[in-house]
Amino acid sequence: MLRRMIIDAHGHYTTVPPGLRVFRALQISNMGRPVKGKVAISDDEIRASLEKGQLKLLDERGIDVMLFSPMASAMGHHFGNALISRHWTEVNNDLIHRVCALYPDRFVGVCSLPQSPGVGPRESIEELDRCIEELGFVGCNLNPDPSGGHWTGPPLGDEAWYPLYERLEKLEAAAMMHASATCNPAFHTTGSHYLNVDSTAFMQLMESRIFQDFPKLRIIISHGGGNVPYQAARYRALCLMNKWEPFEAFVKRLYFDTTVYNREAMELLVKVVGADNVLFASEMLGGVTTIDPATNRFFDDNKPCLDAIASLTDEDRRKIFEQNALRAYPRLGPILARHRREKTVGA
Amino acid sequence: MLRRMIIDAHGHYTTVPPGLRVFRALQISNMGRPVKGKVAISDDEIRASLEKGQLKLLDERGIDVMLFSPMASAMGHHFGNALISRHWTEVNNDLIHRVCALYPDRFVGVCSLPQSPGVGPRESIEELDRCIEELGFVGCNLNPDPSGGHWTGPPLGDEAWYPLYERLEKLEAAAMMHASATCNPAFHTTGSHYLNVDSTAFMQLMESRIFQDFPKLRIIISHGGGNVPYQAARYRALCLMNKWEPFEAFVKRLYFDTTVYNREAMELLVKVVGADNVLFASEMLGGVTTIDPATNRFFDDNKPCLDAIASLTDEDRRKIFEQNALRAYPRLGPILARHRREKTVGA
Repeated sequence: MLRRMIIDAHGHYTTVPPGLRVFRALQISNMGRPVKGKVAISDDEIRASLEKGQLKLLDERGIDVMLFSPMASAMGHHFGNALISRHWTEVNNDLIHRVCALYPDRFVGVCSLPQSPGVGPRESIEELDRCIEELGFVGCNLNPDPSGGHWTGPPLGDEAWYPLYERLEKLEAAAMMHASATCNPAFHTTGSHYLNVDSTAFMQLMESRIFQDFPKLRIIISHGGGNVPYQAARYRALCLMNKWEPFEAFVKRLYFDTTVYNREAMELLVKVVGADNVLFASEMLGGVTTIDPATNRFFDDNKPCLDAIASLTDEDRRKIFEQNALRAYPRLGPILARHRREKTVGA
Repeated sequence: MLRRMIIDAHGHYTTVPPGLRVFRALQISNMGRPVKGKVAISDDEIRASLEKGQLKLLDERGIDVMLFSPMASAMGHHFGNALISRHWTEVNNDLIHRVCALYPDRFVGVCSLPQSPGVGPRESIEELDRCIEELGFVGCNLNPDPSGGHWTGPPLGDEAWYPLYERLEKLEAAAMMHASATCNPAFHTTGSHYLNVDSTAFMQLMESRIFQDFPKLRIIISHGGGNVPYQAARYRALCLMNKWEPFEAFVKRLYFDTTVYNREAMELLVKVVGADNVLFASEMLGGVTTIDPATNRFFDDNKPCLDAIASLTDEDRRKIFEQNALRAYPRLGPILARHRREKTVGA
């Protein structure tokens, strides 16, 4: 029997070489006449950016595989128009693809989408198809508020989103709800906007009929679900008052990651949504890249938080570290199996 | 020694007689030329609205006094202009004053403010003064987003808010952060907007220098702080990364109410912010007016949740049920003492 794998379901390429920022800067210079320039980044630069960063930390923390996506705050869907968003998204996804090709047994790709305020989610399908079918990615990050904190778009239950859901379901690709930076001074990107988006996405889904219409749609709410486990009683009451599907049944339709960096919070999460619906994830390198003086570990070194939850059985741990991710991302299992075979043949 | 009082720090007059809605409806009819009509509500109607509602529940649940404010969702600061908001706020506050005059030992007034998008918080001072100094109220509800979910105004740390903070500090009146209904289809009023506003207000305050500039300002974050206790590790990390005052010290500058309707959530709240900074509150009749099948009690019948937290000492309970409210609302103690004297004399 193979040993249990530890899959980290939420990591971003936040350590990108400067070539990508050069590309982005030139998008401002060319705002009025967008051109898709070239990204000048060598394989050595990619290796250096990861071997001192995410890869080193994966090794140190005993994590086998990370689902890897472009920098979330830098997706910046609110910047420029749909064509600018498309160019930027493509080069970011291509870069993730290069990472996955360099380290096929450590990183598996999750794409960002070329969303843009006022542009229908249908317009993201082409890039989703390319990433899933051509580049071998297993899912996408979906930004419920491409306006970056102005909340000008339709809620997730609106049928404007349906073509994208239909495609995700058909591709067996999962969508992690994840905001980008806010351009609204009312919010702090990682301190309030991300979490508002998580909680708001949850509420939009809960009052929608998405899962009646797309029963196999796979959605992950990031950052531990925002406020969901803590405010569960309020959500339970709303379901009862509105005669919606009971909260306890509804949360089983979703996955929640463990990026809350604290044992008590993780324990509440698992208690509220159940061990079948939690994906281990660190979000590294993400919003909390500093050492917690209470533990002397980096905040995002959060596997020990899960390890410390006494109430979890071995089976629960196996689900949270591995099996739930394989269920949430059906394309992941075959990819990992292929790499395992190739590694065995190569060894 | 007097027996311990139980103070409910968060109640709204959601059971208003229809006369108030008639007034509101006519505000739409007269949008182009706002007139302050009269509110036709008799004392008997007020009595009937409370004796079958909040007052009955206070009695059943053993709560002595409720801090009582106008309906929050109906504040509707986003509707109409500043003059419309002023008329509406005045009649609502006057109605609360009538309630407090009818039941002086059961209800103490908390006002709403005539906020309006794009209008400076300074413009709310006159009504605040009237309510605190003339009507005998002890604080106000402050809406961090008078645009109702479009978040068009300055964050709470912006100096535009300072005249109001200065006045609150001088009056020794507390401000409970509390949203009104959202007019943005992205949000659900009680399911996401309220909680986003709570969490966002917390984050705006945490990255501001408000408490350096107004060290005696008394602020309550409602609904258990939105996501604060659950996401504490993220906030702790942000304080460290930004060299802000440590999270543990910052939360001591605020109060949080207990309107989370669940023992585990309340326990996490008390653990994270401490028993000195939690105010017992039920928010009734508010967003969760239904029976929880898990307990056979109404969700907002939440005193048993606190009672069930084994780790609380008698002193902790006395703080949460009574003493913290007296600290947060310094004008409350003298009002309660006066009513106690009058009752003794009258008896």
